[in-house]
Amino acid sequence: MIKNNTELEYKTSLWFTEEEKENLRIDYRIKEIIYDVYSPYQHIVIADTYDFGKTLILDDAVQTTVTDGFIYNEMITHVPICAHPGPKNILIIGGGDCGAVKEIAKYPYIEKIDMVEIDEMVVAASKKYLKEIAGMKQDNRINHIFADGVKYAKECKELYDIVIVDSSDPIGPAVKLFSAEFYSNIFKILNDDGIFVCQSESPIFYTSIMKKIYKTLQSIYKDVKLYTATVPTYPGGLWSFTMASKNEISVKTDKLVEGNQYVNKEILESCFCLPEFVKKSL
Amino acid sequence: MIKNNTELEYKTSLWFTEEEKENLRIDYRIKEIIYDVYSPYQHIVIADTYDFGKTLILDDAVQTTVTDGFIYNEMITHVPICAHPGPKNILIIGGGDCGAVKEIAKYPYIEKIDMVEIDEMVVAASKKYLKEIAGMKQDNRINHIFADGVKYAKECKELYDIVIVDSSDPIGPAVKLFSAEFYSNIFKILNDDGIFVCQSESPIFYTSIMKKIYKTLQSIYKDVKLYTATVPTYPGGLWSFTMASKNEISVKTDKLVEGNQYVNKEILESCFCLPEFVKKSL
Repeated sequence: MIKNNTELEYKTSLWFTEEEKENLRIDYRIKEIIYDVYSPYQHIVIADTYDFGKTLILDDAVQTTVTDGFIYNEMITHVPICAHPGPKNILIIGGGDCGAVKEIAKYPYIEKIDMVEIDEMVVAASKKYLKEIAGMKQDNRINHIFADGVKYAKECKELYDIVIVDSSDPIGPAVKLFSAEFYSNIFKILNDDGIFVCQSESPIFYTSIMKKIYKTLQSIYKDVKLYTATVPTYPGGLWSFTMASKNEISVKTDKLVEGNQYVNKEILESCFCLPEFVKKSL
Repeated sequence: MIKNNTELEYKTSLWFTEEEKENLRIDYRIKEIIYDVYSPYQHIVIADTYDFGKTLILDDAVQTTVTDGFIYNEMITHVPICAHPGPKNILIIGGGDCGAVKEIAKYPYIEKIDMVEIDEMVVAASKKYLKEIAGMKQDNRINHIFADGVKYAKECKELYDIVIVDSSDPIGPAVKLFSAEFYSNIFKILNDDGIFVCQSESPIFYTSIMKKIYKTLQSIYKDVKLYTATVPTYPGGLWSFTMASKNEISVKTDKLVEGNQYVNKEILESCFCLPEFVKKSL
């Protein structure tokens, strides 16, 4: 809300306008376009923005930025890891920016991380241009599988301790990643003490999607818990994640690795405390 | 991030663009302008927006909306009330939209609420056009004082249990509401068990302002605590409030009235759990 008088500068500068919703837009002033390519699946842009630094934009929607991407990536990984008694094998579906896999790799006792991402070009571009998010040492525990996550879950013969669905919004190809059939297939590839987690959209703007995910997971799993974090570049700021398990979910704060930027022990406990309107909407 | 194809409609429709920061804007599509007047102090606009309903805009900055205004108004009032052993007299400085005073009036044991707002026209417009925020029954405990809050605090001879500074951002006339002199004057008009609270800006975008408020209050008061809430229409979503007291601050969740939209007992406890980067910035 604090502004400067740079009207003239505005008129001659480069902006990216994201249509957050039909009637709401966010405009990011851009220093430069670093990468701009059409993959077989989507339009991939990496732009250097003034306020959020380097930003990954897929089909005109901001996915992650070097300034606030850590919030989402830490919350979708550390929470399920701390809710599992001793995870060894983890599957990520989506997560092309490689921010989630980087967080998981912080835990030395995790033996194997399979990452199933449909778009190899997103991974390659992130590793090359978004080192702040994707950059990490060579780690032999990580297996990149470039495939359709829905198909993978259906045909998979392995069992995982944790499955993380780090998807874009439920439009176009990502719709199937929000279906009951997909959630049931994930259930089948989870160990008996397995944990499932997905991003479940904005509790303010996409309440019905969030509620549907919650209810669908409740019909399949024994325990379902929703938690939130504030992600500035996502519509409405407040963002939800939904975790589901074949057992009662219990998060152990002493399992959390140190040195994170967003999540600490207090956040790990308090992220399940929901505003009254969110509780009511479930 | 979910969007519809209404390009044509966009081009022929009315939008309000807020310059959140020099390089970041939010565009709200507007149904109609309800009120548009220059008061002696500022440009007051009330617009009906598609996504947030009726919205109060002062000098081109969104102050409150009927869709998310309750988050800010509940958090700046219920938290200090529940941190005080038995508040009777409350002073609000600012708060022209009357949302804060409405929340305070929910507590029957509060005897007197003085509201010092510089701009009578904001109060009148809010009461007339923003009934969802400002509308309430006639309440004889509320005294409207249309005056400069800085001057009022300096010259005041009364003592209060809670002083709430519900101000706009620290630019122009509001700058003095963030000064050490003002905070010291508030200290003098607080009872021995008095509580002070103010909005302390975005922990992401205005970290230095937030930190300065925190440090200044620490130099004056015995105990200072920062808490946060997610307010979708404020830059970055995550917003901070800072509470200070002449004693150790202890929030009692059983004091909270029921029937709020955002704050409940869990939120009252968890709002003090700060993300790691916020903790470090203090």
